[in-house]
Amino acid sequence: MTKMVYFFGGGKAEGNASMKDLLGGKGANLAEMTNLGIPVPPGFTISTEVCELYYAHGQRFPDGLQEEVELNLHRLETLLEKKFGNPDNPLLVSVRSGAAVSMPGMMDTVLNLGMNDKVVEGLSAKTGNPRFAWDAYRRFIQMFGNVVKHVSHDSFEHILEKKKLEKGVSLDTQLEVKDLIRIVEEYKKEFRNSTGEEFPQDPKQQLWEAIAAVFRSWNNERAIRYRQIHNIKNLKGTAVTVQTMVFGNFGLDSGTGVCFSRDPSTGKKEFYGEYLMNAQGEDVVAGIRTPEPLDALKRQNPELYNQLVAFKDLLEAHYKDMQDIEFTVEKGKLYILQTRSGKRTGTAAVKIAVDMAKETIIDKKTAILRVTPEQLDQVLHPMIDPKVSKNAKPIAKGLNASPGAAAGQIVFTSEDAENWAKEGKKVILVRKETSPDDIGGMYVSEGVLTSTGGLTSHAAVVARGMGKPCIVGAKDILVDSSVKKITVYGKELAEGAWLTIDGSTGNIFEGQLSLIPPILSEELQTLLNWADEIRKEKDPHTERPKGLQVRANADIPEDAEKARRFGAEGIGLCRTEHMFFDKGKLEIFQEMIVAENKESRQAALRKLLPLQKEDFKGIFRAMNGFPVTIRLLDPPLHEFVPHSLEDIKALAETLHIPVERLRSKAESLKEMNPMLGMRGCRLGIVYPEIYEMQVEAIALAIVEVRKEGIHVLPEIMIPLVGTYKELSILREQLEKKMLQILPPGQIEYKIGTMIEIPRAALTTEEIAPYADFFSFGTNDLTQMTFGYSRDDVGSFLPYYLEQKILEEDPFKTLDRKGVGQLVSLAISNSRAVKKSLKYGMCGEHGGDPSSIEFFHSIGGDYVSCSPFRVPIARLTAAQVALRLPRG
Amino acid sequence: MTKMVYFFGGGKAEGNASMKDLLGGKGANLAEMTNLGIPVPPGFTISTEVCELYYAHGQRFPDGLQEEVELNLHRLETLLEKKFGNPDNPLLVSVRSGAAVSMPGMMDTVLNLGMNDKVVEGLSAKTGNPRFAWDAYRRFIQMFGNVVKHVSHDSFEHILEKKKLEKGVSLDTQLEVKDLIRIVEEYKKEFRNSTGEEFPQDPKQQLWEAIAAVFRSWNNERAIRYRQIHNIKNLKGTAVTVQTMVFGNFGLDSGTGVCFSRDPSTGKKEFYGEYLMNAQGEDVVAGIRTPEPLDALKRQNPELYNQLVAFKDLLEAHYKDMQDIEFTVEKGKLYILQTRSGKRTGTAAVKIAVDMAKETIIDKKTAILRVTPEQLDQVLHPMIDPKVSKNAKPIAKGLNASPGAAAGQIVFTSEDAENWAKEGKKVILVRKETSPDDIGGMYVSEGVLTSTGGLTSHAAVVARGMGKPCIVGAKDILVDSSVKKITVYGKELAEGAWLTIDGSTGNIFEGQLSLIPPILSEELQTLLNWADEIRKEKDPHTERPKGLQVRANADIPEDAEKARRFGAEGIGLCRTEHMFFDKGKLEIFQEMIVAENKESRQAALRKLLPLQKEDFKGIFRAMNGFPVTIRLLDPPLHEFVPHSLEDIKALAETLHIPVERLRSKAESLKEMNPMLGMRGCRLGIVYPEIYEMQVEAIALAIVEVRKEGIHVLPEIMIPLVGTYKELSILREQLEKKMLQILPPGQIEYKIGTMIEIPRAALTTEEIAPYADFFSFGTNDLTQMTFGYSRDDVGSFLPYYLEQKILEEDPFKTLDRKGVGQLVSLAISNSRAVKKSLKYGMCGEHGGDPSSIEFFHSIGGDYVSCSPFRVPIARLTAAQVALRLPRG
Repeated sequence: MTKMVYFFGGGKAEGNASMKDLLGGKGANLAEMTNLGIPVPPGFTISTEVCELYYAHGQRFPDGLQEEVELNLHRLETLLEKKFGNPDNPLLVSVRSGAAVSMPGMMDTVLNLGMNDKVVEGLSAKTGNPRFAWDAYRRFIQMFGNVVKHVSHDSFEHILEKKKLEKGVSLDTQLEVKDLIRIVEEYKKEFRNSTGEEFPQDPKQQLWEAIAAVFRSWNNERAIRYRQIHNIKNLKGTAVTVQTMVFGNFGLDSGTGVCFSRDPSTGKKEFYGEYLMNAQGEDVVAGIRTPEPLDALKRQNPELYNQLVAFKDLLEAHYKDMQDIEFTVEKGKLYILQTRSGKRTGTAAVKIAVDMAKETIIDKKTAILRVTPEQLDQVLHPMIDPKVSKNAKPIAKGLNASPGAAAGQIVFTSEDAENWAKEGKKVILVRKETSPDDIGGMYVSEGVLTSTGGLTSHAAVVARGMGKPCIVGAKDILVDSSVKKITVYGKELAEGAWLTIDGSTGNIFEGQLSLIPPILSEELQTLLNWADEIRKEKDPHTERPKGLQVRANADIPEDAEKARRFGAEGIGLCRTEHMFFDKGKLEIFQEMIVAENKESRQAALRKLLPLQKEDFKGIFRAMNGFPVTIRLLDPPLHEFVPHSLEDIKALAETLHIPVERLRSKAESLKEMNPMLGMRGCRLGIVYPEIYEMQVEAIALAIVEVRKEGIHVLPEIMIPLVGTYKELSILREQLEKKMLQILPPGQIEYKIGTMIEIPRAALTTEEIAPYADFFSFGTNDLTQMTFGYSRDDVGSFLPYYLEQKILEEDPFKTLDRKGVGQLVSLAISNSRAVKKSLKYGMCGEHGGDPSSIEFFHSIGGDYVSCSPFRVPIARLTAAQVALRLPRG
Repeated sequence: MTKMVYFFGGGKAEGNASMKDLLGGKGANLAEMTNLGIPVPPGFTISTEVCELYYAHGQRFPDGLQEEVELNLHRLETLLEKKFGNPDNPLLVSVRSGAAVSMPGMMDTVLNLGMNDKVVEGLSAKTGNPRFAWDAYRRFIQMFGNVVKHVSHDSFEHILEKKKLEKGVSLDTQLEVKDLIRIVEEYKKEFRNSTGEEFPQDPKQQLWEAIAAVFRSWNNERAIRYRQIHNIKNLKGTAVTVQTMVFGNFGLDSGTGVCFSRDPSTGKKEFYGEYLMNAQGEDVVAGIRTPEPLDALKRQNPELYNQLVAFKDLLEAHYKDMQDIEFTVEKGKLYILQTRSGKRTGTAAVKIAVDMAKETIIDKKTAILRVTPEQLDQVLHPMIDPKVSKNAKPIAKGLNASPGAAAGQIVFTSEDAENWAKEGKKVILVRKETSPDDIGGMYVSEGVLTSTGGLTSHAAVVARGMGKPCIVGAKDILVDSSVKKITVYGKELAEGAWLTIDGSTGNIFEGQLSLIPPILSEELQTLLNWADEIRKEKDPHTERPKGLQVRANADIPEDAEKARRFGAEGIGLCRTEHMFFDKGKLEIFQEMIVAENKESRQAALRKLLPLQKEDFKGIFRAMNGFPVTIRLLDPPLHEFVPHSLEDIKALAETLHIPVERLRSKAESLKEMNPMLGMRGCRLGIVYPEIYEMQVEAIALAIVEVRKEGIHVLPEIMIPLVGTYKELSILREQLEKKMLQILPPGQIEYKIGTMIEIPRAALTTEEIAPYADFFSFGTNDLTQMTFGYSRDDVGSFLPYYLEQKILEEDPFKTLDRKGVGQLVSLAISNSRAVKKSLKYGMCGEHGGDPSSIEFFHSIGGDYVSCSPFRVPIARLTAAQVALRLPRG
């Protein structure tokens, strides 16, 4: 007959870590630790096969189980010299669920099993702590009643609350022993009333009923649903682990603690932990008493301390990762209750991974996989001191648009922001929404907060580009710029009030919270260099690099330099219109826009040419030897034209034209849905002179920087193509222009297009012949595929995410099912007609880990993201390359 | 050896109509007519195989050709008793191209061949018309020089123009004979200068060079391009037909005419035509002399007239269609030069098709295929009297948004339109763009003209719905409502000025042109009934009807009745929001929109409920026994809220709320891109009470009309679904509501969704389980797939169409490549998981012939269009069913 029960304890176990299928994750790991010689509270595990049999036999235990359990229970009693139900020396156990795949919180557990009316008295006497004993009994009745007999949790809680009310206290711990005794009586009465049975006093009966309850919890509704959602299939059932309870509150020779094999905050290789004498874990959690550092234990009980050090070394070496270890000392004996890979800060994650690789505990690949993109993100931005943020309560929450924390005084206009900043003040720019006019104000602010907009609204996109903390769509913040104040749930905050925003979480705090600056450590550089090695390694079959190339979105020379410092291997998106936002250039650009005819438009363009050329030169210099993808003018022209009468008057004066003419021009440029209007290559087709000027500036810049010895790799990108003819016409026209300045063969350049309109994605086999590369503009593609305007989603998207209508914000993480389907189709259809085509992704998704993984899997060549996200993209691309072949 | 040359003449021909591949279309038809005993000017055709050999031999004539041609030339001379090059009795021929597939104007032709310095003199003497003879010679030199020797057309024209200038005349016909003689001299000099050769005097040399030139024209650039564009492949080449020239200007016993076997204007079975004595066809075309009715010929030469009648009867019976016949009488002998199916008005097309079917000349299927959708469209709308429109010059042109013509006085506001109309004036509403506020004004206007917007702009959609002529996007018309005038190319027209618009062509005329009213004839009813028979016939294999069902888009009971009268088999789209535009309802709807909270929103909805219920009842009554698809609220709420301060004040007063609150509410509803914002089911999800009220109104309406004995087939349609969860949530919620009012099983209703967002089309396999039907909203799907806002395309779409970047306006004709791909994918993916799903198309394309054909081919079940287009859809769906199996 098959073995059904597996014992662990006394230095050896019948199972091990490889037997998860049979013993569940928990049972297998307890066995593993036992075998390592770690003093784990002993016990035994009933296998998952028994659960399967239990269900196969109509929820009855299989023959022979009783004998095996009895035998193991006896082994346990013998080993511990305790006895089930013996008031003088009671064995108390926990009965826990545990499947092969972790399903946290989905199934049931019963603690303190073995308590009854007599045991509680014995325990009370033995520990000299009747509070503890009665509280343990109370908890057991409640847990047993609820889990095993389905007595409602509320009815127990009601009894407890009533007693607290009666005594005029608010905390459980303020109840006296006599209150607890009374509560236990009432609990038993409630149990009787609900079940028609007396609360069982026989520990064996308690045990068998608890085991059956755990088996049944395998098929409770929430567990079934969890397995459906996570697509968990082909499991036999849950194992049941019966394990000795140990208590750290048996006296001064007892205690409880938590320790880490390395510092989870800094990552330094220092043993770190806390210990509390004569206490249970719950006491620490409840915050009643403050634990002391481990040094205290070292002083009090050096032998035990050394034991602990030895165990943590053993466990870290065995599990090859920093361990978070829970331990309890019961009457001078050390027990390890649990070990697991410890949670850590981003800084610690990087340091531990790199250190462990240098210590040859793990290899470089493992080190790369050990740091999550989220941890890396943390390292790259200032954050609110965790000690502070733990206790601070946000006044509101918005969308986490650009990571990092910032504190500053509220200002409502860009002008104010610039003036205050000049005086050395730190400001947070708070607006309903931002516009290109706000660039200057955003630049000098510590952070940006808007009450409207989604993750790809203007504020969000620009802030990410600047690496500035930003929260958007904080709809509970009512911004009234006219009187310079905000109202949050009735509370008003005026200009100058301090605000702290956490762009990583979307939390908004009143006041100035203390921040921790980002640390760009040597270990981080090392880790990213290892990641680059992995990415660039050639796949011997395809001769292509194993991982995606990482470029940056950068529009001005300064950003290009920043991108290089962050390790970008080129520019994947240079938005030429952003060059025009500077004072001085903007006016000429506006002159071009309001031109009455082609001649005056061309006159203005002639003035812009040398300015744009200089920008290109700066970028080419910064990207010496790396590709630069320049996108020709994309946004609707009206974005550059003022709309308030006051601004119109000012501009009319500057341009020496009648106010009325300018007003009517501005009016005529207005569109119902500018997102879907006259922009992108539509501008380039209808006003060919604009793109011609831009290409001329590019060509002239190439000629000039080449004289400086700069190696230029230019790629000209046409935005918003929807039909192949748009590209074929523009390509022909622009190549002609290039040829006028650059003789053929003198320099290689590429001409490609954005794929950002669904129709383009659906017809790439027609477009491919005219393109050297495709760059997926997944922002716009998401807008059009979903029919979501990124500026207007604020009214429903937060609700959709809350209601799980959407699992993820599609502007943050690429929607694989819809948008991803188009991208995938676009690649496979075009590749079928043109093998040499290169594919990039330059939307906001270029810096998102899940989106990077997807793009890798369907055959992308590079991603492009804001300079600040380049390290994250480098790491993610390497991690993905280690896990998946490129598509 | 294969026969190379095919003779026709003297009552029989060596070829016939079936030999198009070998003789080209023209050669085969001339042979066919000859065989019928029709007196065609005799000649011979050199086969397409000779053309193939010509190219195979490096552009040389094959051996034996010369002999065959000489032989046939001799037969011709013998038959006609004329001789090539004989001044006294010259044979003149035309040398024409003609491939198996018609390529109009792509290849070359030479007329009057056989003229030389002597023949011209002979002809001059013989006809007593030296003007004719010298002009014929002049034309021959020019045509031969240009076609055969590539002497530029301009250099000949230059000579002619110079002479006219010299003589101070403007028409060729004002030149005297001596001028023509002089011109011929200069033409020959020009020929010599350009070619280095004398103009050939030998008619045989002329003939061979012309034959070679026609062969060469097979591969001229424009012919090659034409074959590429029209995908014409696998042809051998062009045939060459050498045919006797006949002249109607040899004297009073000569003449020329055109006749129709039935009246091309009314379709009546009456012989109809015109005749001009002693004239060539050119004289008629040039308008120098006015032809007389055929009755004149009947009186002058009854024998010849009877001959002509016999030939037209023969030809109509033979070709089984109304014939347009060109004839010439040369010295008392009747020649038929050409016969072809005659162009006809829509009215005539319908009558001729039905009459011929009744006369059993053709069968019903052929009759259905004989009327084009465009002809039917003509019949259904008033049109400008062709006699008038032929000579009228439009002052501007816009997009032909809604067919039919209208004349009226210009008004600039809906209010004025309503006031003027009350006074019995006919008005044309002229606006920059229209909004829902303009519905009343549009309704009373004869037609609508806007200077902006595309084919699916508000004005266009509403006007089509009303069946009103409409032109949109007339960008050359500058509308200044503030001073109530328009400016067109500098010319101003004020309020009250008359304008005539032709919504079928987009032409705008100044003044009041006379119109012809539409005629809904008995023949039309008959034709449409036959079409319905064809559509509804069951395919024996699939058990499904062979053709698409045709439903109408109708929003109010009145339109539903109209739809039935036009033969709609149900309503495919009832836009519930259109019900709210009525005065009285609009205010309550606005009250609902500006509600501060759910309670006041629900209070307003309670008031709307009975009103909406009554509308539904009216529609159900009108559609007794036919399905009614009701779309729940779709448009952005701000469309219903006033935006001018004045209107806001008025509404605030009506609703008894502070102006400031209303202003700020209106402001908060504004969106950057409302098309992609808070609308459709997003509204239904965020404000569930709105859809619940609508469904309640539907359910209550059902209960009440059923008591009247009405058979209701309701279909509830959820708009703008992008993810399956939106539909699953709403379906559950709305079914619950339905169940509260309609007990289960009491009535069958369907719940379905619009597929109008690309993502929905890409994920139909997920959506299908929650839908009973899909209706493709191809308007929005086109907007999002192309990234075109229908309200903003005016700035580039006309240019794109002009430049052929787009072959068709995608809002008019479904783009098969992109949008169609999505629709097709959506059907095949959903059908794979749910066979029972029904597919409709309710965008503007539902009434467009090409789009109907496509939807039929990919497996659609029904189309829905405005009532006025229902007849066109019925006819087209039947025509398509005759040509193609349903997908």
